[in-house]
Amino acid sequence: MLERGKTAKKAGIQLSATDTQTRNAALAAIADALEANRAALIAANQTDYERSAAESLAAPLLGRLTFDDHKIDDVIDGIHSLIELTDPLGATRMATELDTGLDLYKVTCPIGVIGIIFESRPDAFVQISTLCLKSGNAVLLKGGREALETNRLLCRVISEATASVGIPDGWIQNLESREDVNAMLALDDYIDLIIPRGSNSFVKYIMDHSNIPVMGHSDGICHAYVDASADVDKAVKIAVDAKTQYVSACNAIETLLVHKDIAGEFLPGLKAGMDQKQVHLKGDDRVRAVIDVEAATDDDWSTEYLDYILSIKVVDSLEEAIDHINTFGSGHTDVIVTEDEAHAKAFTTLVDSAGVYVNCSSRFADGFRYGFGAEVGISTSKLHARGPVGLDGLLSYKYKLIGHGDIVSDFADGKRSFTHISLDQDCPL
Amino acid sequence: MLERGKTAKKAGIQLSATDTQTRNAALAAIADALEANRAALIAANQTDYERSAAESLAAPLLGRLTFDDHKIDDVIDGIHSLIELTDPLGATRMATELDTGLDLYKVTCPIGVIGIIFESRPDAFVQISTLCLKSGNAVLLKGGREALETNRLLCRVISEATASVGIPDGWIQNLESREDVNAMLALDDYIDLIIPRGSNSFVKYIMDHSNIPVMGHSDGICHAYVDASADVDKAVKIAVDAKTQYVSACNAIETLLVHKDIAGEFLPGLKAGMDQKQVHLKGDDRVRAVIDVEAATDDDWSTEYLDYILSIKVVDSLEEAIDHINTFGSGHTDVIVTEDEAHAKAFTTLVDSAGVYVNCSSRFADGFRYGFGAEVGISTSKLHARGPVGLDGLLSYKYKLIGHGDIVSDFADGKRSFTHISLDQDCPL
Repeated sequence: MLERGKTAKKAGIQLSATDTQTRNAALAAIADALEANRAALIAANQTDYERSAAESLAAPLLGRLTFDDHKIDDVIDGIHSLIELTDPLGATRMATELDTGLDLYKVTCPIGVIGIIFESRPDAFVQISTLCLKSGNAVLLKGGREALETNRLLCRVISEATASVGIPDGWIQNLESREDVNAMLALDDYIDLIIPRGSNSFVKYIMDHSNIPVMGHSDGICHAYVDASADVDKAVKIAVDAKTQYVSACNAIETLLVHKDIAGEFLPGLKAGMDQKQVHLKGDDRVRAVIDVEAATDDDWSTEYLDYILSIKVVDSLEEAIDHINTFGSGHTDVIVTEDEAHAKAFTTLVDSAGVYVNCSSRFADGFRYGFGAEVGISTSKLHARGPVGLDGLLSYKYKLIGHGDIVSDFADGKRSFTHISLDQDCPL
Repeated sequence: MLERGKTAKKAGIQLSATDTQTRNAALAAIADALEANRAALIAANQTDYERSAAESLAAPLLGRLTFDDHKIDDVIDGIHSLIELTDPLGATRMATELDTGLDLYKVTCPIGVIGIIFESRPDAFVQISTLCLKSGNAVLLKGGREALETNRLLCRVISEATASVGIPDGWIQNLESREDVNAMLALDDYIDLIIPRGSNSFVKYIMDHSNIPVMGHSDGICHAYVDASADVDKAVKIAVDAKTQYVSACNAIETLLVHKDIAGEFLPGLKAGMDQKQVHLKGDDRVRAVIDVEAATDDDWSTEYLDYILSIKVVDSLEEAIDHINTFGSGHTDVIVTEDEAHAKAFTTLVDSAGVYVNCSSRFADGFRYGFGAEVGISTSKLHARGPVGLDGLLSYKYKLIGHGDIVSDFADGKRSFTHISLDQDCPL
């Protein structure tokens, strides 16, 4: 792994210097190669599928593992969209004249080498690697073991395609064992960022076992709060969608909070809507005074069900709702349903989450829905990138300072002084 | 410490919702209070100074510890400059219509609670705390023990001043012991970012002992590379400034690389310039064939002297220089002296450092010189913030999505579709 880390770092540095045209040609070559290897990819995936089915992998996971004509079409379409996006590299984010003839530029560049550990989804392998290529990053991928044969072939197909247009070997590497992952976590001299996708405990394990910065894509305890001023029909519709549109997603709600002044009017309608979708409801005493549901315990407020279960609590005020969310939530996505703009403003300012939504479903928290083209994950960290992470989250920047023999002594001695004039120009280098 | 962490988190959330006017009024109140408590602050600092002098603290460190009229004037001036800066909070960084009536905004917000561990410099206490206040962050500060009395009084003066304009108590807290620091490192539920300022080994210790994200402000092994096409006079001037203008700074150079084709012409001039400043030179064999200096060993390439010592190496090519810097450097600040624009471009693209400079001294790597008003540190990390970190590095963002009852089912069912139109407007909330 040490040699693989070194190779990736070298390849990453070369990749960072490739021009837009070369990286887009490489993406096009990948799309062509996937098309040309369609039959072989489906056959490799068939092997993975049959082995996993024999091992009784659950049906939804078998669905995610499948890499069929439809999914291959989708990833090829995705690559063509990615080619159309503006090159994220070399963009001047700030330009300042420090003094005459001494200009400072803040310019975007790749992060370097990214290690990503993700679920058994071959389409994710393609999405992640092409996002890294577009943003000039080398990448080490460790997908779930169920997708072993498919990922192995995908890595070979993608590597060969990019080599054909001059991208350095080693920019993409496929890891196949847990030992490889553990070895990768120690390579803080060569790997700049680890993105673990999975449960909170998995993300925490990775953080505990590596000094490499981690961008956690962890589970979510998301809330909807129905304010006293809510439109009850909207509130029911949003709650049902946020809970049931896809229960195993991290952006589905787990707890619903309702203001005491509207609980009597809202809860019966909510129960009717949730009953239709066969959602099991749990409530505190004040909820149970209105609708007949199981009693919720304190544990419910910090439980991510990822299932057709919803906990419900009556609160006395907007402040109590905000406090509950900041205490028990995971900082992922939280919703207020309200017709009161001041309440919407307070909620979106004070709730400390990546997504703070007004009158819409939490299920919109997703890179595709946000228009990012694709996502490498949803970050629940507040540093670097927060929420759905697209190309932007794969960038760093550097400061380029261009002078003509300028020295600090002249400024320290008072011979020259800083002008700090903001410039409206791109970095010439 | 657990209670202090909880208090800081609560205060941080309230602080995030304060308006520009309140935070600027609080800054003005701090400036006034420093003026009003000038004599008491100088007296407290005198106690620290005398104790430290009696403990034989080195002269440069006693200089940093001093908080006299001159330094108090400087920090008060700094606060007035900070008040003038645009409010960094609530800025809309991106606005997208997802579909009619469903608008997404990416809006800046504070990170939350920041823990910072720094050297014995009372002026840094004021700069850091006021940067945090302007950016809406709560802050736990642990300064060097030599500044105990000064920092204790500063914290009280600042707290009382901000309380007088309605800023919540607990937004600023002064830690006084190593035990407090160790307890702080465990508070990953309450603290969002640790900024350790100090040696590489200190930063590494913090990373090893905390799950909180760390923005390392570590030492620098900075280089100057004198290209074959360099202007020799400029090169000598820049090298002397970069080495000697302030030898104990992280942005001073430790190693100079020179292209073989210009070594014969450049090195004698360099030696003359460095001799004037009494810099001890070490060189590889090819350097020693030109000038009479001590032999450098392989260890020299990875040593940060922070002293009047410079190691020198002759390289065969620009590529070898870049490779040397990426191998032995610390990703801080590296300089090329060249008259060849293509070489300048290759160097600034391929050298993987926070600062990549052309024809100027590495000593410009500093938040004040960059025009950031002040800095909380210089980050050698590539995530979140890189290089000198001002207000921008103390920000996170959140996504505000404002709808009218919108649900994902309608998009999944094909009843509605995403428009993803970029909007030129600020978030209304």
